[in-house]
Amino acid sequence: MRVSRLHGIRDLRLEELPRPVPGPGQVLLRIASVGVCGSDVHYYLHGRIGSQVVTAPIIMGHEFSAWVAEVGPGVEGLAPGQLVAVEPGIPCGRCEPCQRGHPNLCPHVRFCGTPPVDGVFAEYTVMPAPNCFPLPDEIDPVAGALLEPLGIALHAVDLAHLKPGQTVAVLGAGPIGLLIAAVARAAGAGQVYMTEPLPSRRQFALTYAADAVLDPTGQEVVAEMRRLTAGRGVDVAFEAAGAPETPQQAAAVARIGGAVIVAGIPADDTMTFNASTVRHKGLTIKLVRRMKHTYPRAIRLVQTGRVDVRSLATHFFPLERIAEAFELVAAYGDGALRAMIQVAETNDG
Amino acid sequence: MRVSRLHGIRDLRLEELPRPVPGPGQVLLRIASVGVCGSDVHYYLHGRIGSQVVTAPIIMGHEFSAWVAEVGPGVEGLAPGQLVAVEPGIPCGRCEPCQRGHPNLCPHVRFCGTPPVDGVFAEYTVMPAPNCFPLPDEIDPVAGALLEPLGIALHAVDLAHLKPGQTVAVLGAGPIGLLIAAVARAAGAGQVYMTEPLPSRRQFALTYAADAVLDPTGQEVVAEMRRLTAGRGVDVAFEAAGAPETPQQAAAVARIGGAVIVAGIPADDTMTFNASTVRHKGLTIKLVRRMKHTYPRAIRLVQTGRVDVRSLATHFFPLERIAEAFELVAAYGDGALRAMIQVAETNDG
Amino acid sequence: MRVSRLHGIRDLRLEELPRPVPGPGQVLLRIASVGVCGSDVHYYLHGRIGSQVVTAPIIMGHEFSAWVAEVGPGVEGLAPGQLVAVEPGIPCGRCEPCQRGHPNLCPHVRFCGTPPVDGVFAEYTVMPAPNCFPLPDEIDPVAGALLEPLGIALHAVDLAHLKPGQTVAVLGAGPIGLLIAAVARAAGAGQVYMTEPLPSRRQFALTYAADAVLDPTGQEVVAEMRRLTAGRGVDVAFEAAGAPETPQQAAAVARIGGAVIVAGIPADDTMTFNASTVRHKGLTIKLVRRMKHTYPRAIRLVQTGRVDVRSLATHFFPLERIAEAFELVAAYGDGALRAMIQVAETNDG
Amino acid sequence: MRVSRLHGIRDLRLEELPRPVPGPGQVLLRIASVGVCGSDVHYYLHGRIGSQVVTAPIIMGHEFSAWVAEVGPGVEGLAPGQLVAVEPGIPCGRCEPCQRGHPNLCPHVRFCGTPPVDGVFAEYTVMPAPNCFPLPDEIDPVAGALLEPLGIALHAVDLAHLKPGQTVAVLGAGPIGLLIAAVARAAGAGQVYMTEPLPSRRQFALTYAADAVLDPTGQEVVAEMRRLTAGRGVDVAFEAAGAPETPQQAAAVARIGGAVIVAGIPADDTMTFNASTVRHKGLTIKLVRRMKHTYPRAIRLVQTGRVDVRSLATHFFPLERIAEAFELVAAYGDGALRAMIQVAETNDG
Repeated sequence: MRVSRLHGIRDLRLEELPRPVPGPGQVLLRIASVGVCGSDVHYYLHGRIGSQVVTAPIIMGHEFSAWVAEVGPGVEGLAPGQLVAVEPGIPCGRCEPCQRGHPNLCPHVRFCGTPPVDGVFAEYTVMPAPNCFPLPDEIDPVAGALLEPLGIALHAVDLAHLKPGQTVAVLGAGPIGLLIAAVARAAGAGQVYMTEPLPSRRQFALTYAADAVLDPTGQEVVAEMRRLTAGRGVDVAFEAAGAPETPQQAAAVARIGGAVIVAGIPADDTMTFNASTVRHKGLTIKLVRRMKHTYPRAIRLVQTGRVDVRSLATHFFPLERIAEAFELVAAYGDGALRAMIQVAETNDG
Repeated sequence: MRVSRLHGIRDLRLEELPRPVPGPGQVLLRIASVGVCGSDVHYYLHGRIGSQVVTAPIIMGHEFSAWVAEVGPGVEGLAPGQLVAVEPGIPCGRCEPCQRGHPNLCPHVRFCGTPPVDGVFAEYTVMPAPNCFPLPDEIDPVAGALLEPLGIALHAVDLAHLKPGQTVAVLGAGPIGLLIAAVARAAGAGQVYMTEPLPSRRQFALTYAADAVLDPTGQEVVAEMRRLTAGRGVDVAFEAAGAPETPQQAAAVARIGGAVIVAGIPADDTMTFNASTVRHKGLTIKLVRRMKHTYPRAIRLVQTGRVDVRSLATHFFPLERIAEAFELVAAYGDGALRAMIQVAETNDG
Repeated sequence: MRVSRLHGIRDLRLEELPRPVPGPGQVLLRIASVGVCGSDVHYYLHGRIGSQVVTAPIIMGHEFSAWVAEVGPGVEGLAPGQLVAVEPGIPCGRCEPCQRGHPNLCPHVRFCGTPPVDGVFAEYTVMPAPNCFPLPDEIDPVAGALLEPLGIALHAVDLAHLKPGQTVAVLGAGPIGLLIAAVARAAGAGQVYMTEPLPSRRQFALTYAADAVLDPTGQEVVAEMRRLTAGRGVDVAFEAAGAPETPQQAAAVARIGGAVIVAGIPADDTMTFNASTVRHKGLTIKLVRRMKHTYPRAIRLVQTGRVDVRSLATHFFPLERIAEAFELVAAYGDGALRAMIQVAETNDG
Repeated sequence: MRVSRLHGIRDLRLEELPRPVPGPGQVLLRIASVGVCGSDVHYYLHGRIGSQVVTAPIIMGHEFSAWVAEVGPGVEGLAPGQLVAVEPGIPCGRCEPCQRGHPNLCPHVRFCGTPPVDGVFAEYTVMPAPNCFPLPDEIDPVAGALLEPLGIALHAVDLAHLKPGQTVAVLGAGPIGLLIAAVARAAGAGQVYMTEPLPSRRQFALTYAADAVLDPTGQEVVAEMRRLTAGRGVDVAFEAAGAPETPQQAAAVARIGGAVIVAGIPADDTMTFNASTVRHKGLTIKLVRRMKHTYPRAIRLVQTGRVDVRSLATHFFPLERIAEAFELVAAYGDGALRAMIQVAETNDG
């Protein structure tokens, strides 16, 4: 099968590897659509994310849909031909976080496309059957691939215990920030205020999910959010920018007794707050680590039209042109949100 | 001013009483629209609700909107002419439940239209300023009056800690059940299943907020809900019927580890469950008592179109014809959901 | 090996069965001490508990400690000779409750001594390695066996989210009620009030964990608890009696906004409340189903002396005299709380 | 009456002021015992805490007990001669945090001894009646004064939702850290590990509430805590040092999925974490702001001997020697934890 492997910084090579064989409880998947995530681009540009380093050629990619090609021994409930969304993490199932229902915190997780585990910029992969979620007719391969980042947004909103009618700020209108805004809106948020430096994303956000989008380079974000909320601040502030100043901005725009949910991944690996701000407000701060228990709910939200993931897919490339996709995303070019690698357009060809 | 007072069972009389005068911190309100609630009808038909007995003539009515007519000394932020929704309960503010943020549980609350406190089937009333919530242009007097039952539904959904994409059952499609369904949907419920014996209400529910509505008189509700949820049951089951069997039905349709939220008020004042059902599932059962901290959120939900309260107002009567309204509601006549007493159509006349 | 099997009502027979062999990931255990639980006695007297019926000879028993006799292939961290407490339920690990961290709610659980799964009134048994918790020197085989009912009590207190200094009622001073009282006290409960009809248990409770113990046959329990709490009621009321009236008593003695935790198993399989009581107080009611994630904490609580389980073991019998033990417990004889079957006194003999 | 007023840095003057007169709902209190809190010393040494600046002479002091000297009009339940503990904050009662049960977050609070509100290093003061909590015989004036810092510790443990048997770290063994450790132990913490640079406090902590106390200047605190917890980390890590590195240390010693509760007040007004640490563990971080709803529970905990506050009072001074007390505490001299100003030894003299 053909795969795209990263051999070094900006060095993606199209190669032939043997097609994997599903073992007991596993499924052979024919990859349909794969989103190019910011973390993929980070490996592409820097060869590492913090302590996770690319030391050998690796297939990246973890946001994906696929058709079941073959089921291994003992697999029930899945059949060849089915279109499925695939949860990319395989937790150990035995550690304390797994046992307590937090597979997203499993320290032994094997996660597609995170070194040294190969991902899915490839024609085929093998995954455990429980990672595969059959998709209803209303969800196509592209939307199916985007259930993965939607799951992160859903987990972020889960952490917030948002109540219908509450107000929300989302700092950063990249794909995760946008999906958080969309889920917050689906969860009944009364007002959704965003910040974003890129004009194209600000414009997209306004029609997609936001009641107002501020430009942090030209506006006093905190003062303006206070004005928008009549001085009260928002019930929940989501940090989805990963900038050095955004965690404290989130704290500053949250109401007294409110919550700050941090989803962004900062380049300098530091999260800093003003101590008086967080203490005087008695804030609760929670960190988003991947996702848990989100696929069935994400499917329902997309199937019933409550959340639109499809319009985040702004650009489409075949596997052969994957490097082009990475360069586009790296340059924030052409209003790109998610570039999708369309490994196969249909299950026939 | 003209008022309608209940003198005994089915004995409503139109009378003249002196217009009240607002004291410090109080507001004189010119009543606009008042909903006829099931509890009003219960007093009308039976002269009591449990231990709360009508022993002297009383003005009923507590779901209402009004225009500010006059503000008492020390009132800020309200001005004559403003249209406001009014929270009908006046908690003591000093007891432990009040101090802990649960004014809905205040044992000393004075609640409009609950003996011996007069309500608002009248031209004027006086209320503390903090009970009055100015309405935006998008909310008219009828919708403003219905923010009160919406608040109960919002409180019920608050208790459920519903997550976006979860599934919900609502047993009973009277006004409270319908509003719970609408709020659950606004909160991102993936599927909303209802039960209701009245055909007109089943039909209304389907277009209003429900994905399916079962007839409990002709269907095996529990078996059918299991089928609809592929055997899993719903994440949250709301009991809003007050029938003897509905609490246990709610437990039976809830998933393992799920929640049962009881909003209905049973005639026999008893709530019974099968012990094995609730224990084997490890259920959490919560009781809805009025509402707390709901008005600003209810206003946003209606203002932004996330919840439609207006279409619950099916019939309209002037104060002179209030008895007609009560008889209609008592008979579940003509598809009535909420009959509204339009005390004044505008603030001019 | 010798085992005791129940062949019918009050028909326990000592028999010889082949010693089991541990498979991969399993451990052969030499049973040390086994508590006679109320559910064991229920099967002994009635041949069933609700829908769970004894249809074939069964070895009962699930509260136990043991020495590791042999480890199967792939087992790590356990070695022959170790004294262990053993969690008696083997969840499936794959269903939704298991995946979400609620193995106690697994509908596919295999639970020692619950038909048709054999238990541990026997010389040996085989269990998965993760069910075995090595005991520190401070915990002997008898205390080790009692970590199982302690786990139920711990789970009950976990559900209550008890805060230090809060007040507690425990209705019923059988072993589970007593252990709940002890754990509540260890969790900082400021006052612990109990009710119990048996004089010997009332007396034991007073020296063991209670500040006051009421006799429900001779006292107005609700009025007296109100008096003890200066009219406020308790923060959390635990129902541990399984009597028809105790759930409503628990609701009646809980404070406004408080919690009722139901641990008792009623003979008529019904749980009934007065609707006005639970609604006016806005109560939360939770059901105790076995236990989850309790063993490491239970070990620490006993090891450090915060909870005394040892003194609940009031009577001791060898396996040969097991019927005697059952008759004693069935008759509530001689102040019995837990009768222990001492299958082996040491690991040498 | 005699008072001690701060006129500038290290400038405390004994002065005569008129005795205040209680208004409606207020109580005149004869001050008994007042603790010298770290915040008092901070004003004494620096003239400010962050944005709160001493611009006019001020009476400091807020941890206190007193005898009721006179009750104002309308006060019920309090009588002259009663010994009371006094909550030092007077919330507005009307803002959203107050209405929702969080008076500790009231932005309009008047707090004794915080500029510009006078405190209680004085012979008399006037407070609202609901701030006064009558003390049982088991609690003397010194212990009564220390219910205030105990309340902060209790609030910190409340935020942690600690379960019995869980493990805890407390970074910093000053009075607040020690009280957190004591409350955590009273709440059933299985192991309590502390860190503290001062040898005298390490020694005190070991006999008072800690299972182990590490010296952060000479030990690898994080590595050692991992060793003590067999690599798992603690369920809850309390930061009570206010040092630049302690928030991140708390995150590093918390288990995966655990909680960090920040009570310390850092000199540089900054709270910094390593982003990977907090994200990979999916931590929840909460901030302690004063206290809420703690007095009745604090009284029970001290009255029943579950928490010992008395032994934190290491030094005693009359009001005349208050400057001596401040210098002692400022120098961490003589093993001082709390220096108490004994304004009056008895209510007779």
